[in-house]
Amino acid sequence: MISFFVVLIVALVAIAYALFLRWRIAQLPAGSPAMREIARAIQEGSFAYLKRQYVVIAPIGIGIAALLWAGLGFLVALGFLIGAIASSAAGFLGMQTAVIANVRVAQAAHEGIKPAFAVAFRGGAVTGFLVVGLALLVTALFWIIFGDMNGMIGLGFGGSLISVFARLGGGIYTKAADVGADLVGKVESGIPEDDPRNPAVIADNVGDNVGDDAGMAADLFETYVVSLVAALLVGNQTGHPVIIPFLVAGIGLVASLVGSFASWMKNDRAIMPALYRALAVAGVVSGAGHIILSRWFFPNEWAALFGSLLIGLLLTGAMMLITEYYTSKRARPVQTIARASQGGHGTNVIMGLAMGMEATALPVIAIAAAMLGSYLLFGLYGVALATLSMLSLAGIIITIDAFGPITDNAGGIAEMAGLPDHIRAATDSLDAVGNTTKAVTKGYAIASAGLAALVLFSAYTEALLERGKIIFFELADPYVVVGLFVGGLIPYLFSSMAMRAVGKTAGAVVEEVRRQFREIPGIMARTAKPDYARAVDIVTRAALREMIMPSLFPIALTLLIAFALGPAALGGLLMGVIATGLFVALSMTSGGAAWDDAKKYIEEGILGGKGSLAHQAAVTGDTVGDPYKDTAGPAINPMIKVVNIVALLIVGFLV
Amino acid sequence: MISFFVVLIVALVAIAYALFLRWRIAQLPAGSPAMREIARAIQEGSFAYLKRQYVVIAPIGIGIAALLWAGLGFLVALGFLIGAIASSAAGFLGMQTAVIANVRVAQAAHEGIKPAFAVAFRGGAVTGFLVVGLALLVTALFWIIFGDMNGMIGLGFGGSLISVFARLGGGIYTKAADVGADLVGKVESGIPEDDPRNPAVIADNVGDNVGDDAGMAADLFETYVVSLVAALLVGNQTGHPVIIPFLVAGIGLVASLVGSFASWMKNDRAIMPALYRALAVAGVVSGAGHIILSRWFFPNEWAALFGSLLIGLLLTGAMMLITEYYTSKRARPVQTIARASQGGHGTNVIMGLAMGMEATALPVIAIAAAMLGSYLLFGLYGVALATLSMLSLAGIIITIDAFGPITDNAGGIAEMAGLPDHIRAATDSLDAVGNTTKAVTKGYAIASAGLAALVLFSAYTEALLERGKIIFFELADPYVVVGLFVGGLIPYLFSSMAMRAVGKTAGAVVEEVRRQFREIPGIMARTAKPDYARAVDIVTRAALREMIMPSLFPIALTLLIAFALGPAALGGLLMGVIATGLFVALSMTSGGAAWDDAKKYIEEGILGGKGSLAHQAAVTGDTVGDPYKDTAGPAINPMIKVVNIVALLIVGFLV
Repeated sequence: MISFFVVLIVALVAIAYALFLRWRIAQLPAGSPAMREIARAIQEGSFAYLKRQYVVIAPIGIGIAALLWAGLGFLVALGFLIGAIASSAAGFLGMQTAVIANVRVAQAAHEGIKPAFAVAFRGGAVTGFLVVGLALLVTALFWIIFGDMNGMIGLGFGGSLISVFARLGGGIYTKAADVGADLVGKVESGIPEDDPRNPAVIADNVGDNVGDDAGMAADLFETYVVSLVAALLVGNQTGHPVIIPFLVAGIGLVASLVGSFASWMKNDRAIMPALYRALAVAGVVSGAGHIILSRWFFPNEWAALFGSLLIGLLLTGAMMLITEYYTSKRARPVQTIARASQGGHGTNVIMGLAMGMEATALPVIAIAAAMLGSYLLFGLYGVALATLSMLSLAGIIITIDAFGPITDNAGGIAEMAGLPDHIRAATDSLDAVGNTTKAVTKGYAIASAGLAALVLFSAYTEALLERGKIIFFELADPYVVVGLFVGGLIPYLFSSMAMRAVGKTAGAVVEEVRRQFREIPGIMARTAKPDYARAVDIVTRAALREMIMPSLFPIALTLLIAFALGPAALGGLLMGVIATGLFVALSMTSGGAAWDDAKKYIEEGILGGKGSLAHQAAVTGDTVGDPYKDTAGPAINPMIKVVNIVALLIVGFLV
Repeated sequence: MISFFVVLIVALVAIAYALFLRWRIAQLPAGSPAMREIARAIQEGSFAYLKRQYVVIAPIGIGIAALLWAGLGFLVALGFLIGAIASSAAGFLGMQTAVIANVRVAQAAHEGIKPAFAVAFRGGAVTGFLVVGLALLVTALFWIIFGDMNGMIGLGFGGSLISVFARLGGGIYTKAADVGADLVGKVESGIPEDDPRNPAVIADNVGDNVGDDAGMAADLFETYVVSLVAALLVGNQTGHPVIIPFLVAGIGLVASLVGSFASWMKNDRAIMPALYRALAVAGVVSGAGHIILSRWFFPNEWAALFGSLLIGLLLTGAMMLITEYYTSKRARPVQTIARASQGGHGTNVIMGLAMGMEATALPVIAIAAAMLGSYLLFGLYGVALATLSMLSLAGIIITIDAFGPITDNAGGIAEMAGLPDHIRAATDSLDAVGNTTKAVTKGYAIASAGLAALVLFSAYTEALLERGKIIFFELADPYVVVGLFVGGLIPYLFSSMAMRAVGKTAGAVVEEVRRQFREIPGIMARTAKPDYARAVDIVTRAALREMIMPSLFPIALTLLIAFALGPAALGGLLMGVIATGLFVALSMTSGGAAWDDAKKYIEEGILGGKGSLAHQAAVTGDTVGDPYKDTAGPAINPMIKVVNIVALLIVGFLV
């Protein structure tokens, strides 16, 4: 019990530290009246969206909670509601800090890139430690109070479902606003990005917050909780002390806190090294903690347990290096796409698609090796702990990621407020790094889902066993194969819907911007102000309308297969959804980021630079990559979890 | 034995009929001297490529045959060589007819669209009946003479391996020439498609023959042989008469012959109905034959057997309808892409990708339903016969498909020879239909692979069993999951390589065309002739160089996993490669065709018509779709088969 208190205290310390950082950031100067006005518009738009998102989700959530109560009892429903509310809170709180930090980063940039970096990093840390502290606190408290495994599964379900909505709704919002603003702004009217004359410019900046910040925070919250619950489930089934997963999580959180102090910039160009140093320190501290933990609980087989935990840390590092390779301007993939842009729009897109597909290979091999290695060392429990060890670093990973949308917004504010060029240059440098870290986080989240696939599947098998049903999920069983195929189509249909939603919503933005240019004369001459709020409102409504169907159909299809074809087909479906989901998500997130950086590479003046034919082609690639990397791709991770958890929940009805 | 003779006679009749048609076509007038000269250039380029392709493949094939002989005995090696040679011959003979028919279609178009259609259809029928007659003859003879199942697997291996090379090499060739010619011709220099001033124009027309004709013929040859071998394997294991699969194949061939006589055009616009009528008649005749066959062999359970066979026919029809929907200018998907083109290049590509992903759903559901239905009716043998029943219509399917490249070439010849506009209009109408039938054939081939997945997997399981090794391919086994993931990455990496190969080769074409425009003054003013042969030579060399790696790495990776991780991981790999391969192939072939038709839709004058912004965007989508639908997508089908057959062959070394 004393160990549980230690875990709770670690969680509370992380939350307290995050609140302290938040208070410190709020004390910083918020810049000129113009900057504050813009920041306020972004804040208002962001909160307006998030509130309406919750209003839309609330009845769905309450309806599901009622069904869960009726079918599976009070604790599952309670767990679901707590998970849903905590996940929403994680997204909300993360974003709340981002919209305070953004303008202060722009202001700090007056004094140089280092102070701006420090503010942005701390802003990211608030999100990171709030999300992880909250996740650990809620999970541990729920377990201490109720000690009910089904309730814990409900908790995971709540978190995952909210996270699908948040990733999709936010992802549709951010990319529709971005694509829409670019299409009319940059392409048709020839005004630069973030130009205040563009009526969609505030919506574009709001999108960074609701998609890349609130959506990402909810996603990582869910990934963290589900990894923890999965480790608890397997530990419970294999008879290991229930405290171990909590301690692994606690060690990772302490390590992330320590790491966050190692993020100083050695010089004005060393942004990435500063972030990587923070992560590396966190990894080393975590590893040290894992040795102590392993020797304490398993004096005789500590090396095997430690090995599994170490594999989780190594996979995190490997995913980072691989993603960095595929999205770095100094490496082959991005440069190949850039060179292909000289052939025009078509060859740019062909090469980007090819690179995205190639970018799945190394991560999948790394995931497969990690799965096999941790299994050979410590069985299924080893795989569960490797996943958890990976996720235990979420505190520092989110910090590094949430840094991105804050600097992106800071750049937008600097541009709109007409700040001097060197300020914009500073925020642009930070933003470029943020693009890579964003891609890394998505790879990290989906890799953890791949690693957890075996664990979640085994939990499902075990749940059937506990109910006296022995099923062999034989690949030679037609029901399993049919399940595999139908499961495989879920990520495809899901991505298709998400991308079409972006296309449709972006179309609505384009129309509205064109309408404002037409009906409000003087916008281009800067004598009249565009109606930002209306653009914000249009994107908000469209994104919320479009997120419902893709979020719910995977659940519906899972239920249909389960009750029409039985538990063997459902098992096949679980593997099918991860088998194609892994590839679709990885190819989209890496491919999208590579397109983005190929454009940035050309904008550095290479291959003709801005305005050249190659640059136009690269802009097309970047546009295609937008819904790939920020809408469809990242939403696949929580969607896979939702399907798996639904399977766990309905097991009782299938036997 | 008498039944075997009937089957052999059917095969011989089909071959004789094809040769008769070929002779009849050769008698037709070949047009003006200009037309003949162009046709000769295309012929020479096509044969030059195909000969060099075989020269490149031959040592690889002989090396593999030697290994097979050493490891698995003489009959497997012999089967392999016969399969390889027959598959090559099928491609060669099919193409040989196409390059005779193309110019005669252009000439016949002087008398109207109906005579042109008749020549093109007969040209397609030569390929169709040669390929299927040859496949049935070789398979039946090999079985009658040697009666060795391993030799039959070797036969399938030879066919599949050649088919991967042919699909990839031809696919890279055709699309590199097409994209390269378009990029410099249409986009940079503003000259129309098939303009004789474009130095890559002959290469482009050669590409239609070596890719869409020879490559397709080899692919369908392999699909046919493997389906037949798979049915023999399962029939052997379950103790059913070995003649049944041969009779099903024979019935389908007779039905295809009957169907081919039902292809008259009711009026000048009814091209598609004429083709569909031929297919429908073949289906009905086939079904009637299936009833007789079922009642004869299984008087008591004839309905179950007939049901399985009928499912194969229905799946063929379903795939046709679904593909038609996703690629028709009159349906939602193509029109949605066309409308999205108004937003520019980026939104066109986003929508095309989304539609391609969506287009996987209905086929996969149809395949899953067919698999489950035929399994419930007649067990694994039912699934095998459903696949074979589907493939037994290959004669008429290939006829309908091979029709496409012939009319495409006819259009090219008409344009280059400066024939009057109404001739080009007639060939264009025929060509447009050919685009849809091409997409249908690819969907058909990959659907049969999906349907056969369970059969091939069970054959692998059974082969292990026969060697005394009982393995449960449990989805909760980490080796199986690792195999599933690694198998899943094969289609991704394979497609990535194929697309990059097209990009690289197209780049070489662009350079060469630019060089000729620069160094041979007078090309644009028509006072000098471009050096067609050099462009043909460059594409030939590049395509052959680029096809090797992607063709061989799936085999290498399969062997690596098999020997490093054992038979369970290999089983996972077999399912993984079909699980993602099915989706990648379907999304690429349907998406690519939809992009193509969206461009054609706009060219009809809708949404601004030719030259509008929407049209430019649609051209980009078409360019992206080219390697999707004609290189990477269709090559996945034989690649899946190669991996499965390699697994069957090495089973003996794994236990």
